[in-house]
Amino acid sequence: MTYKHIFNQNDTICAISTPTGVGAIALIRISGKKAIGILEKIFVPTKKISIKKAPAYKLHFGKIVFNGETVDEVLVSIFRAPHSYSGEDMAEINCHGSLYIQKKMMEVVLASGARLAAPGEFTLRAFMNNKLDLTQAEAIADLIASTSKNAHDLALQQMRGGFSNKIKELREKLIGFASLIELELDFSEEDVEFANRDEFLRLVRELKHEVKTLVESFSQGNVLKNGIPVAIIGKPNVGKSTLLNALLNEERAIVSEIPGTTRDTIEDTVTFQGVTFRFIDTAGLRTSVSEIEQLGIERTYQKIDQAQIILYVIDISQTTVDDIKRDLSDFSEHISNEGKKFIVVANKIDQLIKTPVKFSELVELETIFVSAKRKENINLITESLLRSVDLSATADQAIVSNVRHFEALTKTLSAIDNIEKGLNEQLPTDLLTTDIRSALHFLGEITGEITTEDLLGTIFGKFCIGK
Amino acid sequence: MTYKHIFNQNDTICAISTPTGVGAIALIRISGKKAIGILEKIFVPTKKISIKKAPAYKLHFGKIVFNGETVDEVLVSIFRAPHSYSGEDMAEINCHGSLYIQKKMMEVVLASGARLAAPGEFTLRAFMNNKLDLTQAEAIADLIASTSKNAHDLALQQMRGGFSNKIKELREKLIGFASLIELELDFSEEDVEFANRDEFLRLVRELKHEVKTLVESFSQGNVLKNGIPVAIIGKPNVGKSTLLNALLNEERAIVSEIPGTTRDTIEDTVTFQGVTFRFIDTAGLRTSVSEIEQLGIERTYQKIDQAQIILYVIDISQTTVDDIKRDLSDFSEHISNEGKKFIVVANKIDQLIKTPVKFSELVELETIFVSAKRKENINLITESLLRSVDLSATADQAIVSNVRHFEALTKTLSAIDNIEKGLNEQLPTDLLTTDIRSALHFLGEITGEITTEDLLGTIFGKFCIGK
Repeated sequence: MTYKHIFNQNDTICAISTPTGVGAIALIRISGKKAIGILEKIFVPTKKISIKKAPAYKLHFGKIVFNGETVDEVLVSIFRAPHSYSGEDMAEINCHGSLYIQKKMMEVVLASGARLAAPGEFTLRAFMNNKLDLTQAEAIADLIASTSKNAHDLALQQMRGGFSNKIKELREKLIGFASLIELELDFSEEDVEFANRDEFLRLVRELKHEVKTLVESFSQGNVLKNGIPVAIIGKPNVGKSTLLNALLNEERAIVSEIPGTTRDTIEDTVTFQGVTFRFIDTAGLRTSVSEIEQLGIERTYQKIDQAQIILYVIDISQTTVDDIKRDLSDFSEHISNEGKKFIVVANKIDQLIKTPVKFSELVELETIFVSAKRKENINLITESLLRSVDLSATADQAIVSNVRHFEALTKTLSAIDNIEKGLNEQLPTDLLTTDIRSALHFLGEITGEITTEDLLGTIFGKFCIGK
Repeated sequence: MTYKHIFNQNDTICAISTPTGVGAIALIRISGKKAIGILEKIFVPTKKISIKKAPAYKLHFGKIVFNGETVDEVLVSIFRAPHSYSGEDMAEINCHGSLYIQKKMMEVVLASGARLAAPGEFTLRAFMNNKLDLTQAEAIADLIASTSKNAHDLALQQMRGGFSNKIKELREKLIGFASLIELELDFSEEDVEFANRDEFLRLVRELKHEVKTLVESFSQGNVLKNGIPVAIIGKPNVGKSTLLNALLNEERAIVSEIPGTTRDTIEDTVTFQGVTFRFIDTAGLRTSVSEIEQLGIERTYQKIDQAQIILYVIDISQTTVDDIKRDLSDFSEHISNEGKKFIVVANKIDQLIKTPVKFSELVELETIFVSAKRKENINLITESLLRSVDLSATADQAIVSNVRHFEALTKTLSAIDNIEKGLNEQLPTDLLTTDIRSALHFLGEITGEITTEDLLGTIFGKFCIGK
């Protein structure tokens, strides 16, 4: 197992914690038993102080000297266990951000008794020292990876323990009853019931409701984290790709391509005012085509079905109101309209002599008149997109955005279902306990009360170095 | 003038000081009158403290909150004027290094009353507040840009004031006499001599010697900063490019291409064990060629002439000792051999049945037998290169590595020459003073005692943002 060495907490670890590259300042972090001793060895303070006795949480000026050579002038600070990020003794070196200094600084610290930290190893140690639980650790990785306000807010909420408190609460409720049930097993020959079955059934139903709510929040959490899906649909040559490009080029937009999207659709995320939208540019929808194309179109419809917002693009210079009405009824056969916002984008206004004012009334749908080619009125689309999103309601609610949590909760739900069924069917106590243990196990996996080295390796392996 | 606004020290400035990109940690710096006030507005400390009254040089934990929303959990510190990098009040925010947080954090600080810092503006303020002089400021930019030990050591020495102390010392000596000479002008009708002309001549000669030594150190400084030039020469098809690639691919080498090199030669720098070499791969040298090719070859010879080390590559499977001797005498017509190290690289040993052992004796030159294609013995070349470099002698000497300093010193030298000549020719006092003022001016330009906004704009414009 590759990650084995990361469980050796006797090692003192170090890493560059600032982004890779040249900058004014870089930060080297050291954590472990020898952290302060290593700094003492290589740091020559300007004021005559002893680093070992120096106060923590203070910045000390001086230079790093190794083998008689000055590496750089630096600001350093120390943190004493358990009052540090990792819960261990820590030292931080603020140095100039040249490639040479960063490299040399690491050489010096490594030569003084530290080893290179694995990705996420500082946070892993924080987890192992009970500074945070597993969902909080995962939130830190999400926080660092976040490029939008939604993903950021979600990560920050999770980092502060909102979600894991919820899970712990559920688990503790279950544990209370579980211990009574287990007690019954010890006295099984006497056929006593310490746990009131009716009360237990009430609790199980309550748990079921809460876990179900969490499981159901995943689709929303996923949207918050990965962007609100917006499908761009319409006949070939109405200017869908030009429109997407115009949207991607809007001022202040942060654009990123999503890898692994299919040949039939292209996905790009754009963040406007902190809200991420995930644009799905679909293959042009035609009615009569070959069998192979039909397959592509089927997949397109599936994609559209996942969208929360549909931009239906038409070439206003060549389309009549009747055309649109016919197309919309075509779509309704394939796409469920539930909870979706539908916006008609009337493109190519540059080819019209005058915009048909009564058009939107006739279509009875919000219609935005644009020229994708000339980038006219594109801002009206972004404004409409932002208006259609209301995320405020979710602020205080625990939302699941992590696939691992979603899977563990789904398994918990299934175990709780079995408990409920068992109680209804008045199954014997020893059969009930299997499902109770299973529910406790899956809940415990989420917060890391129950974990394996493989799981930790997978989770922390996704972190960046230096965190 | 683009840089005009940077001279307004009433503004409070801010920037991200860590390298661009995603990392565990990013650092935001704020400097100016409002720095601590801005932090006070947006920082909610975990312990109930007032940032305005908080001790400097200490790390405070809490969160950045703007418009009621938490941006991130952070560590902050403050520095009070003049005890800070810029000499002004400063605040630093250590936040998570996500793109979203870095962007948001800057928005929050900007919205709270700071403006974006121009490149090098923190250091410019340090210069304007007399925390460092101009050569020290320039050294900081060099330090951040340094990728080799030599460039780094040179910058560090200059940053710590070694060079500028030397210049200030020279200038003060000259000022002492200059004031006596200027005094004579005030009494010009009485024909007195306050300044002893013999003593002054002695001083001028001493100054001349010192300035000349500095001017002459530039070629060495340039080598230390930009790498030791190594020319790779030899007939076409002996494997020069393959050898260069093998050298560039040596383990632990830091490779960078030098832009703006000519079509005839390719230059790459490689740093082995902290020493940078600048490899010049020359066009193959032929004896009988067209006129146009002859021009290219002339330029090649010029390049070779600048090299300190020449790797003369031969195809050992196709060359005789007599061939080499003839070629070497050919080269000697074109290339001055003074101070150059000449190493014969006998390539293509993979095509030989056995290596001719007596070869190097016959050629009477250090010969290294390699196979560039199979990357055999390439390490022998790097070892030989490192052996031929002795940089230890230069450790305590002031070395000029900056073109601006070199030019100012050259002008100073010419002014001192004129003073010497004037003294020898017993020129009238008022004619002498012109050259003395000129020498003082150029020396003052180096350390920034005399400066213009244009010059500062040019110097600090080359800095990275956030320093």
